[in-house]
Amino acid sequence: MRIRLDIAYDGSHFRGWARQPDLRTVQGTLEDAMQRILRSEARLVVAGRTDTGVHATGQVAHVDIDDEVWAAATRPRRGHEASDPVDVFARRIMGVLGGYSDVAVRRTSLAPEGFDARFSAVWRRYEYRVADLVAGYDPLERHRTTSVRAELDVDQMDAAARSLIGLHDFAAYCKAREDATTIRTLLEFDWRRDGDGVLVANIKADAFCHSMVRALVGACVAVGEGRLDEEDLVALRDAGTRTSEFKVLAARGLTLTEVGYPAPELLAQRAEQTRARRVLG
Amino acid sequence: MRIRLDIAYDGSHFRGWARQPDLRTVQGTLEDAMQRILRSEARLVVAGRTDTGVHATGQVAHVDIDDEVWAAATRPRRGHEASDPVDVFARRIMGVLGGYSDVAVRRTSLAPEGFDARFSAVWRRYEYRVADLVAGYDPLERHRTTSVRAELDVDQMDAAARSLIGLHDFAAYCKAREDATTIRTLLEFDWRRDGDGVLVANIKADAFCHSMVRALVGACVAVGEGRLDEEDLVALRDAGTRTSEFKVLAARGLTLTEVGYPAPELLAQRAEQTRARRVLG
Repeated sequence: MRIRLDIAYDGSHFRGWARQPDLRTVQGTLEDAMQRILRSEARLVVAGRTDTGVHATGQVAHVDIDDEVWAAATRPRRGHEASDPVDVFARRIMGVLGGYSDVAVRRTSLAPEGFDARFSAVWRRYEYRVADLVAGYDPLERHRTTSVRAELDVDQMDAAARSLIGLHDFAAYCKAREDATTIRTLLEFDWRRDGDGVLVANIKADAFCHSMVRALVGACVAVGEGRLDEEDLVALRDAGTRTSEFKVLAARGLTLTEVGYPAPELLAQRAEQTRARRVLG
Repeated sequence: MRIRLDIAYDGSHFRGWARQPDLRTVQGTLEDAMQRILRSEARLVVAGRTDTGVHATGQVAHVDIDDEVWAAATRPRRGHEASDPVDVFARRIMGVLGGYSDVAVRRTSLAPEGFDARFSAVWRRYEYRVADLVAGYDPLERHRTTSVRAELDVDQMDAAARSLIGLHDFAAYCKAREDATTIRTLLEFDWRRDGDGVLVANIKADAFCHSMVRALVGACVAVGEGRLDEEDLVALRDAGTRTSEFKVLAARGLTLTEVGYPAPELLAQRAEQTRARRVLG
């Protein structure tokens, strides 16, 4: 059986999502917790492999569990009321992780037929938080907000962000990787100033290439400072090569907030398409 | 001259506000930073002496600085534009504290005649955050939110909180201290569920006795769980003795958000009144 996990974490003290020997990662921490409960190997497949320091409120993963292993692990304890084994699993993982853990399984559920956390996903949404001199510096938000020593023009940033939307080659905003395409569909990209003055970017795409969000928000901050303008960002994108005209911003401001999946009846079809495209692309 | 400092901190890694030998405290950290800049002793007087683990977004303090010391410390550096020395002071403190510090001086300003951060204050406002099973657990908010494993009834909690408002002896909700009165005027006390589902208490009083906010919110959580009701909280208050019927909640959920001062022309008068009352009381 396949279980979907909805996951949140403060990435500050993780070396990213992906399991690595001798390093504390989100995948490693969760797999170790599940293995303690299942007394059996557990491998997570994830929608967004976040980098070191990146946070999540809406990460999605799945794990395949043998029926007998599952039945043994989620059996209600003697004297406890029988409850939904899927709920029991989430609670047991949280029990192993301990109180006030920096990673949480917010929900476990039976995955619908054909669901694959990675290959079924149709879009990912991130949020990036920047505190400028208008917002001021708030120590309680420092772990998930990047500070810049300037006063930023949010209207210019918002206009510049929106001008980049669409199906394009984002090579200028990606850290190159040999086997990966940099053609992506940017579905949403906008900026607002929140109630506390912090600038928040909302950014949604079918998928992101490496460091793409942090490069795009860095380019927008250069616009907010008046060093670049909307036309520059489009021209840089169309030139297709990396530039030093803007900074790739720090991981601390970045949070994966949501992953989109098609309706259950279209799931299997979607996963097939994605796999085929990745192979061709 | 007297400088007012508006201060924010994440209390997680501080042993409270008040300076203590060999312990990291907010007062100690800020005084050390100021002394490096002033090359002279600096003593802070604060509105709310917060306990270990308690946070602040709106803490207020003052420091008295000798005119010559001030002039030397805030002189614009060679080649820098002359700017308001009061602004320069806040920036220099932040420079000494370093990037992404867990304490921040958000503003420094010249204190009006008669201003005393402690004795002029007419009220203090705190916020307390509780995540129940409805809100779920968010690792990114764990440093400033207390988790409870129950579903809480916010309407009952709000009604119970409001029933405690007024001038009363709050001995039942205070940790006793020999020389301190427990008679306080509770000006506001209410609960709401925020957008993210977290329960937030707003609580404002002329002053608070020791652990009073954490006891009051603990009593309200017992109401939210259905273990106590509004009448119980009033009866407990009027009985005037400490009880084990509710828990004093953890410091992590508590933030000092605002301190109220009278209009400048009434400041000196207010400080005199407070000092007189403290001596009599």
